[in-house]
Amino acid sequence: MKNPIITLLNPPKISATYSVVGHKEAEGPLGNLFNEVCDNDKFEKETWEQAESEMQLRAIKGAIKSAGLQETEIDLILAGDLLNQCVGSNYALSSIDLPFVGLYGACSTCALGLAIGSCLYNGKILDTCICATSSHFCSSERQFRFPLEYGGQRTPTSQWTTTGAGAFALGKEGTVKITEILFGKAIDKGITDISNMGAAMAPSAIDTLKRYFQNSSHSPDYFDLIVTGDLGYEGSEILKDLLLGEGVDIRKNHVDCGLMIFDREGQDAHAGGSGCGCSAVVMACDIIPNLEKGILKDVLFVGTGALMSPISVFQGSSIPAISHLVHLSRG
Amino acid sequence: MKNPIITLLNPPKISATYSVVGHKEAEGPLGNLFNEVCDNDKFEKETWEQAESEMQLRAIKGAIKSAGLQETEIDLILAGDLLNQCVGSNYALSSIDLPFVGLYGACSTCALGLAIGSCLYNGKILDTCICATSSHFCSSERQFRFPLEYGGQRTPTSQWTTTGAGAFALGKEGTVKITEILFGKAIDKGITDISNMGAAMAPSAIDTLKRYFQNSSHSPDYFDLIVTGDLGYEGSEILKDLLLGEGVDIRKNHVDCGLMIFDREGQDAHAGGSGCGCSAVVMACDIIPNLEKGILKDVLFVGTGALMSPISVFQGSSIPAISHLVHLSRG
Repeated sequence: MKNPIITLLNPPKISATYSVVGHKEAEGPLGNLFNEVCDNDKFEKETWEQAESEMQLRAIKGAIKSAGLQETEIDLILAGDLLNQCVGSNYALSSIDLPFVGLYGACSTCALGLAIGSCLYNGKILDTCICATSSHFCSSERQFRFPLEYGGQRTPTSQWTTTGAGAFALGKEGTVKITEILFGKAIDKGITDISNMGAAMAPSAIDTLKRYFQNSSHSPDYFDLIVTGDLGYEGSEILKDLLLGEGVDIRKNHVDCGLMIFDREGQDAHAGGSGCGCSAVVMACDIIPNLEKGILKDVLFVGTGALMSPISVFQGSSIPAISHLVHLSRG
Repeated sequence: MKNPIITLLNPPKISATYSVVGHKEAEGPLGNLFNEVCDNDKFEKETWEQAESEMQLRAIKGAIKSAGLQETEIDLILAGDLLNQCVGSNYALSSIDLPFVGLYGACSTCALGLAIGSCLYNGKILDTCICATSSHFCSSERQFRFPLEYGGQRTPTSQWTTTGAGAFALGKEGTVKITEILFGKAIDKGITDISNMGAAMAPSAIDTLKRYFQNSSHSPDYFDLIVTGDLGYEGSEILKDLLLGEGVDIRKNHVDCGLMIFDREGQDAHAGGSGCGCSAVVMACDIIPNLEKGILKDVLFVGTGALMSPISVFQGSSIPAISHLVHLSRG
């Protein structure tokens, strides 16, 4: 059987990253690492949905500028978000005169965009692209759970959707390469609790990591970090426990973007952060800069997405999830 | 400036197509060409959303079987639909043990999937993939406009969402190649009428076709057909008129999937068909078989999508649209 891991012989480099966040993220452990912060989370817009689009637009423009490029030098933008019909991305992109590919993978979309962008670069379909994702606590709560005005009590397993947008410029310049890709499968283990995305997503992360280590010559120890985004506390514990049962021990080098972005106790973030923007801003502000500095050398980034629809859950369906894997390597 | 048209030097072939539709589509002009019909549109499921997933699942499995392949021989499935969080695809794919890339481009998703799949094949990222999309009249009406039970009067410009799913196997076997790709831009000309998707989408089709003919050595006459999907009557008229004003005359060879699938007068379909499934089933049952038979030789397929969100429209935003182009060639 063919190896499902895609090895890129002409790997793209990450030429620039850019992160834009809201006030809670700026107050968290990574607070001084973000490129841009909006103190009232509104980004000078009238609705939360427009605020999210503005945030994504700023991240895209920031990444283009940080890479020292002009908009006309970008071949393609790959973008997605959590909102119905991906309007966070659609409205951001309707302000930019560039070709656009819309992706949907819930919180795995950041990894999915990097994966597809890397494959297109590898095959010389494009020379430079931008991969961007966003999420906004207020637009997500309204859409997926309760209106903020309701003031509902959050359960301990619930994650706090990150208000943030991250963008990555892929091209020939840079020190961090994307060398391997493994696309995820939609895995449904019967979870129906819309406030426990960690439990819904963990089985898909297990499937992807298990397939990776079954088909790779590398063991988990090879990697400085195995970064999931965003399983939160519940999902991370499930992932580490069940993978150990499968003979894959990632306890020493696993981190989760949802656990990095907030101080769970001090910031009342329950099981941690989540959202398309969470892994995007953590990768953009912390993990990739640490690869660039040489503090890290090899990182597996596993974007984990709960393909959750309130309508389907109300109809009695459970929540499938998907996890896409990207291997980042310095030098 | 670099040519934005992507020419595939290692183009994939369409190894098989498969179309599954509901009763109204089966009563239309293409009624005897579909692979599978469900007379009550429910596909033995309890909800319209589940019916849509089942329809997409049948299309994917049908395409794999028609291509003479086993599921284990498929490297990747690229799929999308109109439903919030793309649940039509997510639930279909959670029944299939294969890697999955989720796409969102509204009704342009069929062309987007063929475009991305072709680029990945061209770059030897994969040997075989399935591109699939679906839409369902009943799940779409509920989500985008009114519950069916309300029995609202439809405006003359409104399109009828096709109940249908189409799937395409791309690989090395077949007589029809995908030779060129042009990714669309998100174009917003200020349309706010959620019952006039044709007017919202036409400007993006104009942008894509104008950019194609500005950068291609081919003139419109080179093509046996220029197929849009799905502008309907309103959008098709706008497209032909405004493109003519730009010096591009497609009046002789333009057809629209939304105008092909229903008998507008006899079937009370107003401005014609629409939906992710419309262009998918028309391409699968009619256009591609006619390329295979040699009745057609070169076809431009322009998938047109209105990136419409009811929430954004209620908030006063207008409707951006996007059109992705695929050049199909026999032999």
